Amino acid sequence: MDFDNTTRTELSSLGEFGLIDHLTKHIELKNLETVKGVGDDAAVLFFGNKLTVVTTDMLVEGVHFDLSYVPLKHLGYKSVMVNLSDVYAMNAIPKQITVAFAISNRFSLEAVEELYAGMLMACKKYGVDLVGGDTTSSTSGLVISITAIGSADSDKIVYRSGAKETNLLCVSGDLGGAYMGLQILEREKAIYKENPNLQPDLGGKDYILERQLKPEARKDIITLLAQLNVQPTSMIDISDGLASEILHICKSSNVGVELYEEKIPIDPLTHETAREFDLDPTMCALSGGEDYELLFTIDIKDYDKIKNQMDFTVIGHITNEAKGKNLVSKSGAVVELTAQGWDGLKK
Amino acid sequence: MDFDNTTRTELSSLGEFGLIDHLTKHIELKNLETVKGVGDDAAVLFFGNKLTVVTTDMLVEGVHFDLSYVPLKHLGYKSVMVNLSDVYAMNAIPKQITVAFAISNRFSLEAVEELYAGMLMACKKYGVDLVGGDTTSSTSGLVISITAIGSADSDKIVYRSGAKETNLLCVSGDLGGAYMGLQILEREKAIYKENPNLQPDLGGKDYILERQLKPEARKDIITLLAQLNVQPTSMIDISDGLASEILHICKSSNVGVELYEEKIPIDPLTHETAREFDLDPTMCALSGGEDYELLFTIDIKDYDKIKNQMDFTVIGHITNEAKGKNLVSKSGAVVELTAQGWDGLKK
Repeated sequence: MDFDNTTRTELSSLGEFGLIDHLTKHIELKNLETVKGVGDDAAVLFFGNKLTVVTTDMLVEGVHFDLSYVPLKHLGYKSVMVNLSDVYAMNAIPKQITVAFAISNRFSLEAVEELYAGMLMACKKYGVDLVGGDTTSSTSGLVISITAIGSADSDKIVYRSGAKETNLLCVSGDLGGAYMGLQILEREKAIYKENPNLQPDLGGKDYILERQLKPEARKDIITLLAQLNVQPTSMIDISDGLASEILHICKSSNVGVELYEEKIPIDPLTHETAREFDLDPTMCALSGGEDYELLFTIDIKDYDKIKNQMDFTVIGHITNEAKGKNLVSKSGAVVELTAQGWDGLKK
Repeated sequence: MDFDNTTRTELSSLGEFGLIDHLTKHIELKNLETVKGVGDDAAVLFFGNKLTVVTTDMLVEGVHFDLSYVPLKHLGYKSVMVNLSDVYAMNAIPKQITVAFAISNRFSLEAVEELYAGMLMACKKYGVDLVGGDTTSSTSGLVISITAIGSADSDKIVYRSGAKETNLLCVSGDLGGAYMGLQILEREKAIYKENPNLQPDLGGKDYILERQLKPEARKDIITLLAQLNVQPTSMIDISDGLASEILHICKSSNVGVELYEEKIPIDPLTHETAREFDLDPTMCALSGGEDYELLFTIDIKDYDKIKNQMDFTVIGHITNEAKGKNLVSKSGAVVELTAQGWDGLKK
């Protein structure tokens, strides 16, 4: 999308239908499963003999994002990623999204175009069709609600509830980066507020800033597992932090877990930045959230198939429920695994 | 749901997962198409060899509803209806919904329970499963986003684009009532603001108040058309007013229309109340909106099948695009049909 950022077109000059037409006129449908996209009372899809998965997430200005440091295009991209990540976590392939947003008149058409461009960029990269939605005015901030729809073979779908004793617990990528990226952005915002003449100091933090601002859903892991012929027994995506997600799997599967602190993958930049902020890197991985990595369990007989993989790490194993949910620290101490979330981390 | 309205439980005392568990624990799934509902990264559905339809609507406090006179249970009910109506307008049967809402801490748990109870009541009545969603905090008001998913046979689905010259234009129920119900509520709110000791005067207005506060999606019309063996050539639901919806069908189908003012079904109470407010009843039907009736076109050869129906009315016919979109007034004058929407009406 090509436009001059200095122009300001009022949304009211288009009206709701004009805005929808304007935003959606260049959409090209890519999936055979999409029979009819935007432009009717509902979109029409056809999944043949496959299962359909559906997930919805809502992002609220001032709660989930701060537009003082999040560019709208990144926000659009991330809001799609958050949903695609949930579809991949079912071992399914996302095919369509619907997008609803409420936006106040402090936003111009150009701002909405930026947001939408980010969403369409995400759709293009992940082969997803934008098939419908709703656009409405808001009395205050921006609210985005996205529903993602995907397709899976019935023998491939993975729930949170299938983890079994002796299964290996694996996680893709590395953890805690998105949280440390957020800390950097919040710090620079605070400094800027004190002295608007100071330039933000984001040098050398590219990786963790990207983890926060432009996360990628792990489509590649789903593809890799299929290539390796490994069917996970349970899976979840990491939106609220590793600890919280492990506990979800344990609860749904009625199992216990032993998680090894030393195995938790943390990027050196995340580690170093956590230390700068006087935070424990492990705590950032356990409770930071927004990593959008995949956490899954596999049968131990599949170990040989995965042992040389660089894209994910075995971080523990599933135990009998009676053994509890435990973190084995680097010093060998065994502590109960708890989900503190961001609030806990900030104390 | 049974609870004491005088109790106030803070949402923060449950946390997000606690709130979701609390709200969803009594959900019973009714549809075979629902493989897995709330509780995983995504819901899982199976539509066999049928088409899937998907629609999303967002309702924003202060834009779409005013909680000073809309009870939360009614709001929940209506927010589901708005979406089901879109599914019926495809000649499809709604099977599932996902519900996302953002809510500020001025709402108690009991308030959220009321909202949710209304949604579940709608689901129960229409045989729809609530299969997922998202619950988040908001910095100010309440925002609700619902996605409805339905199922249709590929030879039964109806688009906006199928209207043909000589087709009859039909509408279910009667129009303008929801708009007049809103005028009553707004008037009583204004009076109450001036003098809080005055009781609102809603006597005798039950029908139009219900049209505004508790609309019903026209599932019965879809069933009736199937029983009559009438396949509509195009269909849309009336959310923005008759005129706007007719113009959508004409635009999508590349046709013109002749609409007869005298045929537009208006309830006597709507008519009388419009006169009280010094409004033209026809204008209220054309531009009032929120009636959630179905507007559809049928082949003229089906006329004998439908001529004795009480549940819908033939209000005009489809013409060649070159003839334009015209309203034939009661006096016989022909005027161009325009969509003014609510704003136009208020001038």
